[in-house]
Amino acid sequence: MIGEIIAIGDELTSGRVLNTTSRFAAGLLFSAGHEITAMSTIGDTPAEISETLKRAIKRSDFIIVTGGLGATSDDLTSEVVGQALGRPTVFHPEVFAKIKALLSNPDDQTLSDLQKLALLPTGAEVLSPEARMAGYLLVHDNKPIFFLPGVPHEMRELLANTVIPRLGILQDGAVKLVKQKVYKVFGVGEIEINRRVTHLEREEDGRVRIGYYPVFPEVHLSLTVIDEDKSEIKRTFQHLEKEIELSLGDSLFGADDDTMESVVGKLLQSQGKVLATAESCSGGLIGHKITTVPGSSNYFAGGVIAYSNALKEKLLGLDSSLLEEHGAVSSAVAKAMADGIRHKTGADIGVSVTGIAGPTGGTEEKPVGTVFIGLSTPDETVAIPCRFPGDRWQVQELTAVKSLDLIRRLLLGIKLQIT
Amino acid sequence: MIGEIIAIGDELTSGRVLNTTSRFAAGLLFSAGHEITAMSTIGDTPAEISETLKRAIKRSDFIIVTGGLGATSDDLTSEVVGQALGRPTVFHPEVFAKIKALLSNPDDQTLSDLQKLALLPTGAEVLSPEARMAGYLLVHDNKPIFFLPGVPHEMRELLANTVIPRLGILQDGAVKLVKQKVYKVFGVGEIEINRRVTHLEREEDGRVRIGYYPVFPEVHLSLTVIDEDKSEIKRTFQHLEKEIELSLGDSLFGADDDTMESVVGKLLQSQGKVLATAESCSGGLIGHKITTVPGSSNYFAGGVIAYSNALKEKLLGLDSSLLEEHGAVSSAVAKAMADGIRHKTGADIGVSVTGIAGPTGGTEEKPVGTVFIGLSTPDETVAIPCRFPGDRWQVQELTAVKSLDLIRRLLLGIKLQIT
Repeated sequence: MIGEIIAIGDELTSGRVLNTTSRFAAGLLFSAGHEITAMSTIGDTPAEISETLKRAIKRSDFIIVTGGLGATSDDLTSEVVGQALGRPTVFHPEVFAKIKALLSNPDDQTLSDLQKLALLPTGAEVLSPEARMAGYLLVHDNKPIFFLPGVPHEMRELLANTVIPRLGILQDGAVKLVKQKVYKVFGVGEIEINRRVTHLEREEDGRVRIGYYPVFPEVHLSLTVIDEDKSEIKRTFQHLEKEIELSLGDSLFGADDDTMESVVGKLLQSQGKVLATAESCSGGLIGHKITTVPGSSNYFAGGVIAYSNALKEKLLGLDSSLLEEHGAVSSAVAKAMADGIRHKTGADIGVSVTGIAGPTGGTEEKPVGTVFIGLSTPDETVAIPCRFPGDRWQVQELTAVKSLDLIRRLLLGIKLQIT
Repeated sequence: MIGEIIAIGDELTSGRVLNTTSRFAAGLLFSAGHEITAMSTIGDTPAEISETLKRAIKRSDFIIVTGGLGATSDDLTSEVVGQALGRPTVFHPEVFAKIKALLSNPDDQTLSDLQKLALLPTGAEVLSPEARMAGYLLVHDNKPIFFLPGVPHEMRELLANTVIPRLGILQDGAVKLVKQKVYKVFGVGEIEINRRVTHLEREEDGRVRIGYYPVFPEVHLSLTVIDEDKSEIKRTFQHLEKEIELSLGDSLFGADDDTMESVVGKLLQSQGKVLATAESCSGGLIGHKITTVPGSSNYFAGGVIAYSNALKEKLLGLDSSLLEEHGAVSSAVAKAMADGIRHKTGADIGVSVTGIAGPTGGTEEKPVGTVFIGLSTPDETVAIPCRFPGDRWQVQELTAVKSLDLIRRLLLGIKLQIT
């Protein structure tokens, strides 16, 4: 079915807040085989809401409206939608009773604030049976309009459990099947990737879409196959998958929900190895990324943030003469840091970074963005010299992801470019 | 002037990519005194683009179109806009020459790919004089349509240096002045903040807007005053600022571009103090946040990520008996970690965290989200017990921001709730 997503809120049109929810809803609906032709973001103005809703009702099969269903005074969606569609809000005592039942010992002021959550446009049908979340369905001019909360996990739950099944029932005619996969690449640019796979785009005449999306510092490539025939989709998909994997080579690090840190984590876990980190210019970002993955305590011992030179000596046992001779940002210091953390912690792999994140501290010989990444294993200790472009945030991000990518390559036995 | 923002791209309507650029543009235009009535996101379909552009031309004073100006095969904006508005693309050799001049030794394939960047709809005026960035102006039915690249820093530069000055020239009639300030709060919920300041919303009858935006784990409150009279704006603003600051108390940690880590950094710097961190469940996130601030090496020595118990002993000198007696997640261990890192590094303040980020590892007595934060100074060592709600990501984020907030409170001499 063809749908449209409308996000309502002055905070969105003034640029104060980023609208992440429309994209989120579009992704889920697209995966369920629906096509989203437009996403609009509009202010809390009844005239604008009325015009946008009426236009959407005319041309779409269903409409999703997000945001503005909360209890604060700037949550105006129900009220203005009520005005816009000529469906004044009415108080639903049964909804309010359920909201009250979810609270332990609310004070009078809170209860009075929450009454607003039970004021809904005439004819609204509440979507969450226990009223745990805001959200309702209005059928207007025979078109379903789903009003969903802006909180991502609530919206996901309502979309997956309520909205998408209902759309499935409403839908008739031939069902178009959609199969999608997202390939994640690090170390190769968007244009180069495009060049390598562009010949596949034309191959299957409209049924195949390939998209290229820089998601700094990675590039994601999405492969979408649309068809009415299940086995035909499968055949095309298998063929294209193989081609894409060949084209991207070892820069392809994962797909779909994989992240660089989850891929590295799986490799460490399956090889029974433990990692430790010694970070200077990345300030803890590598450790942070690794520990976002549940279960990372199985393969991550911890590490040291040796931001100052003094700590490089005190916590990692570096010789002050080494720092003086080569400078803190050097191949020799990166190697000594990686060895140091491996020995201090007893880990199987020590990774280290030392570099200049900027904006100051650069020299002609070692400009901002100069970073050395060290890797230490019982077999060898190496350092990889890097020169990253961009501002402080970009240099730190590139440093951390490149370090993880080097650990991935080390674990996979891919040859590294070392000093 | 009244404007509208249109983002074009199938990757946006399929939910594959988040549209951050529209919000970004809206924020800059709003600050410059323009009103954005709608932001639309549409696919690469000529009919849809045509309809959306024509509707925008009818009702807005200016239009911003973002994205799809790059060199890969899915960058279709110029081509479809050309079709939609009956302005076929033409090749601009002078633009191509400038693009070529910016490259050192491009190969033939690259040059052939980049030709696309010089194919622009008839009548387009390039915005960047040296063609360093994509972006052009089309005047259609007497309305200016600015086509801007999706890359944030390029868009910012073109908006600030070219688009906003041009709109200033086009604009006539009374200029409405806008003054806006964003207050940042940690530790108090959106509803509670709303309750404390809601009486101010009504005070100035339409000229004052207050918005509430949860930006996890903080809440931001925006104060906007709109008026034709400069001194009137100033008077109203001063009065409301004082009221808001009083209402928010010491949970208000900063305004506008401040972040929790930049506020803590400024306090450390001005008091000449050095901080060191000992992180367990936050895995390096505190160090990472601190070191995103340029110049943080002046007040951040570094620290230890003591993710495993073994490293708490090896790197921080904790007694194994302490860990056995109290458990790693305890007030006693948090204090010993904070003391340990302060002594190991010679810093003035040691901060530590130990806790259970989840999803597993919780017990009845210490469920997921249980975290102890330790603070050690030469005067005293304290631990603050916390119980954070949410998933792993939320617990880690709350742990890091709460730790920074406690350092802020310590440096400001605000009494802490300790164990």
